[in-house]
Amino acid sequence: MSTVTRQLKLGAFMRPVSIHTGAWRYPGAWRDANFNFTRLKYLAQRLEQGRFDAFFMADHLAVLNMPMEALRRSHTVTSFEPFTLLSALAQHTTHLGLVATASTTFEEPFHIARRFASLDHLSEGRAGWNIVTTSNPDAARNFGLETHVEHADRYARAREFYDVVTGLWDTWADDAFVRDAASGDYFDPERLHVLGHAGPHFSVRGPLHIARPVQGWPVIVQAGASEAGRQLAAETAEVVFAAHGTLEEGQRFHADVKGRMRSLGRDPDHLKILPGAFVVVADTVDEARAIRARLDALVHYDSAISSLSVALGSDVSHLDPDGPLPDSLPESNASKSGRERVMALARRENLTVRQLAQRLGGYAGLSFVGTPRSIADEMQQWLETDAADGFNVMFPWLPGGLDAFVDKLVPELQARGLLRREYEGTTLRENLGLPRPQNRFFAPRS
Amino acid sequence: MSTVTRQLKLGAFMRPVSIHTGAWRYPGAWRDANFNFTRLKYLAQRLEQGRFDAFFMADHLAVLNMPMEALRRSHTVTSFEPFTLLSALAQHTTHLGLVATASTTFEEPFHIARRFASLDHLSEGRAGWNIVTTSNPDAARNFGLETHVEHADRYARAREFYDVVTGLWDTWADDAFVRDAASGDYFDPERLHVLGHAGPHFSVRGPLHIARPVQGWPVIVQAGASEAGRQLAAETAEVVFAAHGTLEEGQRFHADVKGRMRSLGRDPDHLKILPGAFVVVADTVDEARAIRARLDALVHYDSAISSLSVALGSDVSHLDPDGPLPDSLPESNASKSGRERVMALARRENLTVRQLAQRLGGYAGLSFVGTPRSIADEMQQWLETDAADGFNVMFPWLPGGLDAFVDKLVPELQARGLLRREYEGTTLRENLGLPRPQNRFFAPRS
Repeated sequence: MSTVTRQLKLGAFMRPVSIHTGAWRYPGAWRDANFNFTRLKYLAQRLEQGRFDAFFMADHLAVLNMPMEALRRSHTVTSFEPFTLLSALAQHTTHLGLVATASTTFEEPFHIARRFASLDHLSEGRAGWNIVTTSNPDAARNFGLETHVEHADRYARAREFYDVVTGLWDTWADDAFVRDAASGDYFDPERLHVLGHAGPHFSVRGPLHIARPVQGWPVIVQAGASEAGRQLAAETAEVVFAAHGTLEEGQRFHADVKGRMRSLGRDPDHLKILPGAFVVVADTVDEARAIRARLDALVHYDSAISSLSVALGSDVSHLDPDGPLPDSLPESNASKSGRERVMALARRENLTVRQLAQRLGGYAGLSFVGTPRSIADEMQQWLETDAADGFNVMFPWLPGGLDAFVDKLVPELQARGLLRREYEGTTLRENLGLPRPQNRFFAPRS
Repeated sequence: MSTVTRQLKLGAFMRPVSIHTGAWRYPGAWRDANFNFTRLKYLAQRLEQGRFDAFFMADHLAVLNMPMEALRRSHTVTSFEPFTLLSALAQHTTHLGLVATASTTFEEPFHIARRFASLDHLSEGRAGWNIVTTSNPDAARNFGLETHVEHADRYARAREFYDVVTGLWDTWADDAFVRDAASGDYFDPERLHVLGHAGPHFSVRGPLHIARPVQGWPVIVQAGASEAGRQLAAETAEVVFAAHGTLEEGQRFHADVKGRMRSLGRDPDHLKILPGAFVVVADTVDEARAIRARLDALVHYDSAISSLSVALGSDVSHLDPDGPLPDSLPESNASKSGRERVMALARRENLTVRQLAQRLGGYAGLSFVGTPRSIADEMQQWLETDAADGFNVMFPWLPGGLDAFVDKLVPELQARGLLRREYEGTTLRENLGLPRPQNRFFAPRS
């Protein structure tokens, strides 16, 4: 196949390192992969060998909301905190982007601006900020709030939060620090801007007491799929982590968000849309499917059947686990499209109730399960039909699922010209092909 | 001299790496020492060679309060953020304690508990928390507050903050994570405690979503010298960073705080009092004094004379810089003892107005300026007369002032048995000789 000029951008999802709830039980898997720094260092270094753009750390401000019978089986309950982990990983890598999730709901913009600037300096320009709003009521209760802020207000707050943070990053001109030992001037006061922000949600004076980040601003990442989320992404995001089940959904989202960017006068190439993808690669399709079936079988049935009942909006725990899902189920107020998608999945793959439940309890989103060639075909199709600019990859388990991706799939993608052989630059922006933002308060000195 | 059993504990103060405002201008000094990770890595690794207990990072939540004419000459205006910096330094050291300052005034206990736990895991048990309250009004304005909380309320809040954070650290029993692949149990629900704190300042449910720190709790550090600060230290601190001008002040403070501990039933050995000390070591006393004079001369006179006017409570900018300070000055509402101390210093060292001003503008607190032998004598006296358990060292400049300490003074201290030759353990607690706190909710399993 001929070399293509457009290439896939690859993120690697973490927290947990495998989204699949059975991953830690897989034979040979590192059971403590989420919480042993040695394992995470291995992960980061392998990602760099595989020429990934970024390590993407999701985050939560509470133990995940689930009943104790499911929670006790979850490998997500202990995890490093993103800023500390990524600063440590920066010391063991040289090109990998380091994206931390930070909530605009329970944080202060001054702290967030400072921490990302510090991470960007410590990593020499590899930081990214995944801006999220937090809707988990258990998180609210960790910060003294009993009820949760409304969706619309969360987004208005998020937008103002972003304005304050980016304004604080621009406190100092890039050339502010003259450090002139002879005169005694450490900086040039003309190259310092005091923000003085006063808005409906935040009042923040500044200045920020850290130099402008290496990248100007760390890369801005978002994941919101709602109307408000898409608009915020079109206005501000440079990477979007999306969740699409099908190519057509990907195409619709891609066209919508990039269209919004054009309306706003933004270059659509300055935003990379990366759907999450669970990737199981093996030498044959049958082997890959067997790995997935084995993984799914490790999802505890109690957790699995309750996931299925939630998805269908109907208690199905009385059904025969080894029989098929009935063609009709009682009406419910569960999302109709979600319910139909689940029922279609059962029919398409001819799954028993148990298998379907374990699929949902493991990972039921976009998956590529096959050989290096079949998966490269699928990824190429997503790229070439404008359904994605790349993927945010989820590995089935560590280290085997990761190793298979890097050792088998990456060479195939590189041979097709779909993935870089060497990094283009040293910063995350350079590798993603994103411009360095101008300082809004200071033009470069002529 | 015979080997003593009690040894000095040594911290190294940072932020800035040299407290002396002229340090960055010293010939051969790294002008960017506060903000170049390569320099800080060198510092941390040298401290470890010198068998220091800990790297202590002060912190501020705003640019330091000073007029622009002084600020423009300050090397403190750009600095890394503590958690990100210390997590990175943890990757380049193996025994050095890593103490971060975190404010109880503008932070949330859930975030702080989580970040210190993460740093403690990433450093394998080397984290310490310097608990401060923040009184800088410029910091308040970075967090939407125009007026500042009262001193007494700041301390009540600090105490409750400490209770919440330590309670969150005890969320999980040390043996909670069973990771039993066969049964599918990742943890034992009986070994999880949900805090459910509801108090006057904070309402925090928990659980914390990170395992109990390696040290049980990171080491608790404090610096408050007020009545409320001493009491909080006696109740909770394991290290106190003190600021004493004289041996007698050190003895009084030591006796007071350790007496309070006895009254509370705490073992006085479980708190180490480390006065800050600015140390200039050279082969002769004259050479050491010349280094200090040269450093002081690099403090800009405009900044220096305004420091002196503040200290004396009287504008002295009209005086002849090269003449002596007059014996009498107009009455003022400056602290009488502070004013007398400054005047006594001028008389004792026969300083001109300029020299006195530059001393205050540089560093006027406790200093040891001399040879390895003379400084070891002084440190030994402080240790043996119960004025200190060690020191929080401030270097005159980097790298030379640091190198002189490690290469000249450390061997002299070791030869006298005043400083370890090898670390006692791998955690900060082990090296400081502090017990690992019991989990308040779980006894060890029998």
